[in-house]
Amino acid sequence: MPVPEWVPIRDELRDDEPYGAPQLDVPVQLNTNENPYGPSEETARDIAESVYRAALTLNRYPDREAVELRTSLASYLGHGLTAERVWAANGSNEVMQQVLQAFGGPGRTAVSFAPTYSMYPEYARNTHTRWVAGRRRDDFGLDVDAALALIAAERPDVVILTSPNNPTGTALDPAHTRAILEAAPGVVVVDEAYAEFRRDGTPSALELLEEFPRLLVTRTMSKAFALAGGRLGYVAADAAIIDALRIVRLPYHLSAVSQAAAVAALRHEPELLAQVDALRTTRDETSAWLREQGFEVAESDANFVLFGRFDDRHAVWQGVLDRGVLIREVGPLGWLRVSIGTPDEMLAFRTALHEVTR
Amino acid sequence: MPVPEWVPIRDELRDDEPYGAPQLDVPVQLNTNENPYGPSEETARDIAESVYRAALTLNRYPDREAVELRTSLASYLGHGLTAERVWAANGSNEVMQQVLQAFGGPGRTAVSFAPTYSMYPEYARNTHTRWVAGRRRDDFGLDVDAALALIAAERPDVVILTSPNNPTGTALDPAHTRAILEAAPGVVVVDEAYAEFRRDGTPSALELLEEFPRLLVTRTMSKAFALAGGRLGYVAADAAIIDALRIVRLPYHLSAVSQAAAVAALRHEPELLAQVDALRTTRDETSAWLREQGFEVAESDANFVLFGRFDDRHAVWQGVLDRGVLIREVGPLGWLRVSIGTPDEMLAFRTALHEVTR
Repeated sequence: MPVPEWVPIRDELRDDEPYGAPQLDVPVQLNTNENPYGPSEETARDIAESVYRAALTLNRYPDREAVELRTSLASYLGHGLTAERVWAANGSNEVMQQVLQAFGGPGRTAVSFAPTYSMYPEYARNTHTRWVAGRRRDDFGLDVDAALALIAAERPDVVILTSPNNPTGTALDPAHTRAILEAAPGVVVVDEAYAEFRRDGTPSALELLEEFPRLLVTRTMSKAFALAGGRLGYVAADAAIIDALRIVRLPYHLSAVSQAAAVAALRHEPELLAQVDALRTTRDETSAWLREQGFEVAESDANFVLFGRFDDRHAVWQGVLDRGVLIREVGPLGWLRVSIGTPDEMLAFRTALHEVTR
Repeated sequence: MPVPEWVPIRDELRDDEPYGAPQLDVPVQLNTNENPYGPSEETARDIAESVYRAALTLNRYPDREAVELRTSLASYLGHGLTAERVWAANGSNEVMQQVLQAFGGPGRTAVSFAPTYSMYPEYARNTHTRWVAGRRRDDFGLDVDAALALIAAERPDVVILTSPNNPTGTALDPAHTRAILEAAPGVVVVDEAYAEFRRDGTPSALELLEEFPRLLVTRTMSKAFALAGGRLGYVAADAAIIDALRIVRLPYHLSAVSQAAAVAALRHEPELLAQVDALRTTRDETSAWLREQGFEVAESDANFVLFGRFDDRHAVWQGVLDRGVLIREVGPLGWLRVSIGTPDEMLAFRTALHEVTR
């Protein structure tokens, strides 16, 4: 439904809809790549106690620089990182908006490689950054020669790579990341929202930070840390890149409550990350089962699997939904994405999909 | 210190500094218009318990529409408002950035009337909105004829009024608000961050919402609600205006933790607002005392007072700081701003100022 004529919204926004996956109240939610395992009561209690201490001085503004949180995040990431090389915001989407406010914007170009995360064009729209989407290979891996040609042609101010990629699950070949870092004239963002789920032997772009000062690696606590409700995204980069983000950030963007909750959650890293291995195993089992059923399955290093192909994917999505399982109709035509839930949830998914497609 | 040459930040940002008042660790902080009274242990505990319940499902994304929070805020505001006519974000600065993303932006103009809140030009810069500042009268009241002439000349897409104005404390004459609403071709934002502190008989622009659908009234829980650390700003407007903001908001911008904390705080409205009357009294006493000392004092309907004039305001600011009291060097040259603290804090301020200026 377009915005009414009398509302003086910008023309290019008038026919847009608010971004977001359909939120439907069904028993099995496998649509937004959430971690199915919530924190324990003990961890929730520790988060609440940290918030209690913060709440006693909520009349004061929070630490604008979020130093304790950034120190904790740097410690978690390792690789010799320190607080001045880490920045945090309300979800990695706020991080990405800040990146495009600082390094993109009017007269500047950002490049990514589709199919990829469907929010990127919205960040570009919100920041008036020209958006150019290259194409991935048919197996959703990066076509590095085409990517390098596009970078040479467009001279983009920002390149966004995604590893593991959403919605395909595909991780980047480190040689490709390096080739793009060497060729790109501006900043290169590697979005590693799902990094903790990658298979053994798949390196993180964090290893390249020392060598490439124009590299930014974004992460989130939403997925592996099971903190989607906490909205805590972060980025590791050179300190001068972080300082550039500080110029465009809104002052006091991260509440004292958010900072306290995230610092507390990071204290419980062993518990919160304990399910990552189980989710990886379930992911691999899900991929194997889907292949056994005769579906095409994208190689996944994430906590979701893209599978297909369907002549009428919407009908399959609806059929699965009718059986109480919400998956996501997203990505290239003919494919569907299922997030990795608990073994019970995946059984419900298998049963529903089998009924719909047999 | 400018951003190093090798960092490909936008040119117009290269020499900018991150916005924010100096944060110095001194005994008496009267520089950022915080409420000196923190929540009680009981209220802090209720906030923490609400966060505990939210924390148990932090693996799930928050309610993207923040319906419970918006319902609570609408109920607090009254005037027949409902959740669909209220929007909330991480501080009123995120609200204002969303307003300029939706209604400002490249090729569009925003107008305000200086001296006023020093963040407005930063919102305009971040959203590439052309910024035009009219001037206030010498007593910091709005020069309505000049304002109407500027609006006729510039045809601004966004007009930002501020009542009570920051850093002057001056409230808008409702006849002036109405005249501008009738003349403005785009949206009109009345920033009422300090509304709860206004003197008896000063109406809120909320009363004009029914009559003027292009009016937005922004508020915050930072000041009267003593929740600066909670970062919860909000806006009341027509439902179609709110829907326009929803198009540019980042999905899940408000964490489940922030939503739970703010809803809990709103349950304790009587306690949290109980100090507003005391702060208004102290404000009036402070204004009277400053006048007795021979200073010029701007009429204040807020929780701060602008006073002057000083040939060397920085020396006065520094002298007061040397005595352990941090006030703010902000606004028109020659003036200083003091936030209203506890009676003890105001005594320390008076003593320090007296020593520095006698």
